[in-house]
Amino acid sequence: MTAGLTAGLTAPPPLPAGGLRVVALGGLGEIGRNMAVLEFAGRLLVVDCGVLFPEVHQPGVDLVLPDFSVIEHRLDDVEAVVLTHGHEDHIGAVPYLLRLRPDIPLVGSRFTLALVAAKLREHRIEPVLVEVAAGDHHAAGPFDTEFVCVNHSIPDALAVAVHTPAGTLVHTGDFKMDQLPLDGALTDLGAFARLGEAGIDLLLSDSTNAEVPGFVTSERSIGPVLDAVFAGARQRLVVSSFASHVHRIQQVLDSAARHGRRVALVGRSMVRNMGVAQELGLLHVPAGLLVPVEEATALPAHQVVLVSTGSQGEPLSALGRMAAGTHAQVTIQPGDTVVLASSLVPGNETAVYKVINGLARLGATVVHKETARVHVSGHAPAGELRLLLQVARPRHLMPVHGEWRHLRAHAAIAAEVGLRPDQVLLAEDGVVVDLVDGVASVVGAVPIGDVFVDGATVGAVGEETLTARQILGDDGFVAITVVVEPGTGTVVAPVHLTARGFADDPAVFAPAVELVEEALRRTLADGPVDSHRLAQVVRRTVGTWVATTHRRRPMIVPTVLEV
Amino acid sequence: MTAGLTAGLTAPPPLPAGGLRVVALGGLGEIGRNMAVLEFAGRLLVVDCGVLFPEVHQPGVDLVLPDFSVIEHRLDDVEAVVLTHGHEDHIGAVPYLLRLRPDIPLVGSRFTLALVAAKLREHRIEPVLVEVAAGDHHAAGPFDTEFVCVNHSIPDALAVAVHTPAGTLVHTGDFKMDQLPLDGALTDLGAFARLGEAGIDLLLSDSTNAEVPGFVTSERSIGPVLDAVFAGARQRLVVSSFASHVHRIQQVLDSAARHGRRVALVGRSMVRNMGVAQELGLLHVPAGLLVPVEEATALPAHQVVLVSTGSQGEPLSALGRMAAGTHAQVTIQPGDTVVLASSLVPGNETAVYKVINGLARLGATVVHKETARVHVSGHAPAGELRLLLQVARPRHLMPVHGEWRHLRAHAAIAAEVGLRPDQVLLAEDGVVVDLVDGVASVVGAVPIGDVFVDGATVGAVGEETLTARQILGDDGFVAITVVVEPGTGTVVAPVHLTARGFADDPAVFAPAVELVEEALRRTLADGPVDSHRLAQVVRRTVGTWVATTHRRRPMIVPTVLEV
Repeated sequence: MTAGLTAGLTAPPPLPAGGLRVVALGGLGEIGRNMAVLEFAGRLLVVDCGVLFPEVHQPGVDLVLPDFSVIEHRLDDVEAVVLTHGHEDHIGAVPYLLRLRPDIPLVGSRFTLALVAAKLREHRIEPVLVEVAAGDHHAAGPFDTEFVCVNHSIPDALAVAVHTPAGTLVHTGDFKMDQLPLDGALTDLGAFARLGEAGIDLLLSDSTNAEVPGFVTSERSIGPVLDAVFAGARQRLVVSSFASHVHRIQQVLDSAARHGRRVALVGRSMVRNMGVAQELGLLHVPAGLLVPVEEATALPAHQVVLVSTGSQGEPLSALGRMAAGTHAQVTIQPGDTVVLASSLVPGNETAVYKVINGLARLGATVVHKETARVHVSGHAPAGELRLLLQVARPRHLMPVHGEWRHLRAHAAIAAEVGLRPDQVLLAEDGVVVDLVDGVASVVGAVPIGDVFVDGATVGAVGEETLTARQILGDDGFVAITVVVEPGTGTVVAPVHLTARGFADDPAVFAPAVELVEEALRRTLADGPVDSHRLAQVVRRTVGTWVATTHRRRPMIVPTVLEV
Repeated sequence: MTAGLTAGLTAPPPLPAGGLRVVALGGLGEIGRNMAVLEFAGRLLVVDCGVLFPEVHQPGVDLVLPDFSVIEHRLDDVEAVVLTHGHEDHIGAVPYLLRLRPDIPLVGSRFTLALVAAKLREHRIEPVLVEVAAGDHHAAGPFDTEFVCVNHSIPDALAVAVHTPAGTLVHTGDFKMDQLPLDGALTDLGAFARLGEAGIDLLLSDSTNAEVPGFVTSERSIGPVLDAVFAGARQRLVVSSFASHVHRIQQVLDSAARHGRRVALVGRSMVRNMGVAQELGLLHVPAGLLVPVEEATALPAHQVVLVSTGSQGEPLSALGRMAAGTHAQVTIQPGDTVVLASSLVPGNETAVYKVINGLARLGATVVHKETARVHVSGHAPAGELRLLLQVARPRHLMPVHGEWRHLRAHAAIAAEVGLRPDQVLLAEDGVVVDLVDGVASVVGAVPIGDVFVDGATVGAVGEETLTARQILGDDGFVAITVVVEPGTGTVVAPVHLTARGFADDPAVFAPAVELVEEALRRTLADGPVDSHRLAQVVRRTVGTWVATTHRRRPMIVPTVLEV
């Protein structure tokens, strides 16, 4: 528990023979791009391979990937990628990993593999799939993997125990302990107890809700709330949720059936995922309930529920367009009811409130988690994390899946149930933990960067580009072009200034052009000057003018062309 | 309650003789830049004049002002600006209004005027101040203003009743109904009842917490929670709060005194405001408790509390620097305790969590409103709004101070207590409400824009500049300069390409330069071409290349120079 953890760490020593190494390429110190790499006897096992959605200070970026550079040169050593469940922050980066080596086996439950396969088809990759179920063992090289049922906000989620001669590591994946899950798939505490009895040397456990006291409310509690909203709605209903939350959608369908409303699915991922869920028997759709959206919009308003994407305020999603009044098929009318039956993922608050306000402005009644109990979290809060530790009794805990505040809170829970500080491994991305002779400890760190997907490119956008975008986005740029005679530097054309993102009125720059011309005259008065020096003069002149006159710092781009 | 309210409204008709007009220049449909303009018999009265903090889609902007253009040509008609309390969203734009006419009288309570005077000193403006207290009347032209004590998260807050021959308008300002306020200053329900008895024709009432059920918890409840945190802290304590929240800071000082800790104030606005509060007798500081920060950092860690700004995650604030490890005087040590005793203003979530995570990474225990009851809101929730309506019994309600979701929720509360839809005036900025013959109604709307303060400029940055910043911030720019012979368009120098914010590696642009050269050759093959056409060719060539090769949309800036 040292401060500035990674900063003080150096490259790790070679893994001792018989030892098990763990390094997270993502998911520690952030919520997203979960990926843990296990190493034993020269072979690698990957657990999850997800994406992170970019933050405000990463403008223009579409996705952030785990930094594969740590294993890029060792892809042939990878025995398999185990996928604990089908959320984007666990499977979203699989296509980018398989681009590097397409035949890495993907091990997961039926629904998880169906979702990742659909994603890979869009990337034209034909994966090697190994389907497993709770209770199964699968040997991946020297890693004997064993799967345990866990309950989460998506069906068919698994924890994985990895047995090696070095000891047993258990990774919970994402989990909570809903005691009355809709599909009866409980988090298998018996299995965790049995694994604990045999000895768990290192437990990697979900930290997302470690700051939240107590136990989760059952997903089942949402049903009656939805029913009450449905009973009160006189006109059209729109319910938005995550497109992978099969049980939430199931409850919406059930409420719709009870209240004599037809349902239309709106949004590409909603239609695709619910199709997969229905095919696999995970979503039960009463005959005749689902109708295409064109048909739904033609029905009387009180006979319709639209189930849509966009619960995180994505402006281009179905709900985002409805709120902006730009959806091609759906127009929100005063008196409509919109339910956001979803979490509010940190970072999305502004976007979500913008959608809520847009809908409210159009006259809709908006029901969201702050005004009604229309959401329960998918992650175990403190009470359940404590319970898991007491049942599994691991020798070491490595909190995963969390920002620093969550990892620290999880460590505090571990302390409460009796783990000593040396038994709790607080790590961030890149920190290397070795399990040797039954003792797990931090042995070093490898450098981890951010790999950005931006348009069609992966990795082309780096820190330099992002820094430039921040400057440009805050203050724009002023570009000044000077055409000079080669050799002498004599200016042979009027100084040309272009600015964007600085001020609406171009007249504001007239004094700057004059100042540049004057500065160039002074500089050239004593004889020939090279282009590099002229560019410096231009930059300094414009920079000083902008700073003193406008107290601003746009990017200044001088160009001296020799003609 | 029509949809797309302002869109359907046209310019208002002239105000009928004997009528009272109300138009909000800010604060409706947003939290911030509160400013209402009242008109009677050709004279104007302004209530509040605050700033709005910019949103993510307004990059680089420092502040957003109310759009004064509606009254700019009538500044001589303004009798006074009534300031209900001293928060930035109520007084922050006063300097910009007084720049236009410095002698507009400012009417407010002693603390409010002290804060606005301090602000005006920084702008070198000497204001005309009219101090009032609860119970006072002040005649501002035809407006007989009467002040009512309200309780809020800053001392000395007032509601204002405006009596005119057209009827009585009451503006609550920001308020809640803490039943046990630290200073005993209750929201004066008796006064509201008396005003109601005499007849309130139009009530403008704070909507911020209209979505929140029930009643506020007393500010006093924070004390014991702080005490418990103080009792458990073994090392240094840092408590962050709003720099105007005198009662919160008072409780921190009291806890510090009880636990034998000295207090240092950190952050410019904290030092300034608490100095004012202490001078006015609003903050009670035990002798010897306060020490300068240099002295505090030299004391043993367990004898110190630092009270700092930065509760909203501002990166350059005292706490922001501590979290980033860049504060000149304060270094966070593992085991320190940091308390964010403040709200989390919507829009600031990402910044605040970044600060919390930074502190957690350094080893601090961070206590915030999601983990302990260290904050209560300053705004009346639904139960209190209902109570006020039942006590004041206004003939009409105009919900103010809220985003659309809040205004709608307030309207729903009004409906619960029996106001008919035509008695509730849902308006957004610019919507004009006239009170004529005892009936208030929406009569039209005036255009309201966003006025941005950006560096030293006010109003120079408009929508065009912001759109450019968004494009530049997301995808950067590609600037291409072509030097040609006047008249013929013959290219006389190599095509020059500069790009920023697009890709780290400049080599990526080599194919684009070749394509431009090729396109220019083709265009010029049939004879002379003018510069405008050449610029079009360059733009289209680069645009197509970027879209197809990179699936991106940077700003493309072609320049054709004739030499």
